[in-house]
Amino acid sequence: MTLLGLTYILVGMLVAHKNGKRKVSRFRDAERTRERLVQAAAREIYRAGFQSASLETILAATGVTKGALYYHFDSKEALGYAVVDEVIGPDVRLAWVRPLLTDKDPIDALIGAVRNIPVQPVIVRGGCALNNLAQEMSPLHAGFRKRLETAFNAWREAVASILRRGQAEGSVRRDVKPDDAAGLLIAMVEGYGSLAKNAQDPKVMKAGIRNIVGWLESLRSLHSLPSRGNHKRG
Amino acid sequence: MTLLGLTYILVGMLVAHKNGKRKVSRFRDAERTRERLVQAAAREIYRAGFQSASLETILAATGVTKGALYYHFDSKEALGYAVVDEVIGPDVRLAWVRPLLTDKDPIDALIGAVRNIPVQPVIVRGGCALNNLAQEMSPLHAGFRKRLETAFNAWREAVASILRRGQAEGSVRRDVKPDDAAGLLIAMVEGYGSLAKNAQDPKVMKAGIRNIVGWLESLRSLHSLPSRGNHKRG
Repeated sequence: MTLLGLTYILVGMLVAHKNGKRKVSRFRDAERTRERLVQAAAREIYRAGFQSASLETILAATGVTKGALYYHFDSKEALGYAVVDEVIGPDVRLAWVRPLLTDKDPIDALIGAVRNIPVQPVIVRGGCALNNLAQEMSPLHAGFRKRLETAFNAWREAVASILRRGQAEGSVRRDVKPDDAAGLLIAMVEGYGSLAKNAQDPKVMKAGIRNIVGWLESLRSLHSLPSRGNHKRG
Repeated sequence: MTLLGLTYILVGMLVAHKNGKRKVSRFRDAERTRERLVQAAAREIYRAGFQSASLETILAATGVTKGALYYHFDSKEALGYAVVDEVIGPDVRLAWVRPLLTDKDPIDALIGAVRNIPVQPVIVRGGCALNNLAQEMSPLHAGFRKRLETAFNAWREAVASILRRGQAEGSVRRDVKPDDAAGLLIAMVEGYGSLAKNAQDPKVMKAGIRNIVGWLESLRSLHSLPSRGNHKRG
């Protein structure tokens, strides 16, 4: 639902006439089918990994025929790429890029993003969709590896960028290296995600969030005055 | 090569006679076959994950028949358990438990263990065997999950325990919570391992090691006098 989705809306507004209408509606149906396939594939890949993901399960979940699947996607790989580009990548940007495009205090903004890491049992047990796929596919498949790296890079750049602003404004310690600290934050988040997934226990992730928040507090410059109410360590 | 290996040595010393000899040698051959299967399975699981690991590949690598495989292991799962119990678990203890059973300064010992994290391209690209299997199998299979958790717990307890000694001796900050810090260390190591595996680039792991060492330095109590030569941050 990126450019194609936008195209549909424009076309829908401009040519909602007789013959046009049928074409548009067929186009819309095709788009909906494609979107349903991508969402079902995202769920199945999240459950079983890409290699073990079953096209039969995806077809059964959507009620789509194999013919229709191959109309939209040349291969299982193309469907997997769509999951990265249209589900996992946007989810990373929603959780880690957009919330950091803010005027708030950088450390407060980062703590807010960390506190928003989902800790629902079903998500803790399934792990991070980005990390799952990166762990499975990076050594096996350059196409997946690069797409997933793009998402990690966007995440790291968003964190490094807000830390640079904090240094320019004086709220973040000058000895912090923004790129290194951004990498460390992501390593902590994904590392705790791994431990919590192994433990199958949200408490592990909650403890991780507290520890990451504690580390983020340590990046404040000493003369910056944190708004104490917002970031207790307990 | 744990209890069974020991049994063989004792038996070998005591009954190296005529008939006994043939029995012992058959027993030894069986043990060697079993060991070769476990090592080949460890390599294949490391390459492809447990679910995608191919018994045919393992048999071809060892020259063992399917019958002999099932003589030693009831199932692919039993072979996988042996990989965790006899390869992955011992490797974790070798890298993270044994080096911390030392009289050295606790932070120096931890920094030493972190600096020993392998950064050879083939290992960085394949990732951490413990984390790979935990990520793949924890949500799917309680037997694997628990065995892998045992290895993570031994690692965490070894780190927490040496930090507690450091606090008792005054070399580690009193406000550090040993269990939390141990979890954070493991999260950092595994998280950087994930990022480096995604990047397929040892430089990412080397940068990670530098950052983890920097964090470990920050756990020293202010009045402890580090032996500067041993832990430059560069």
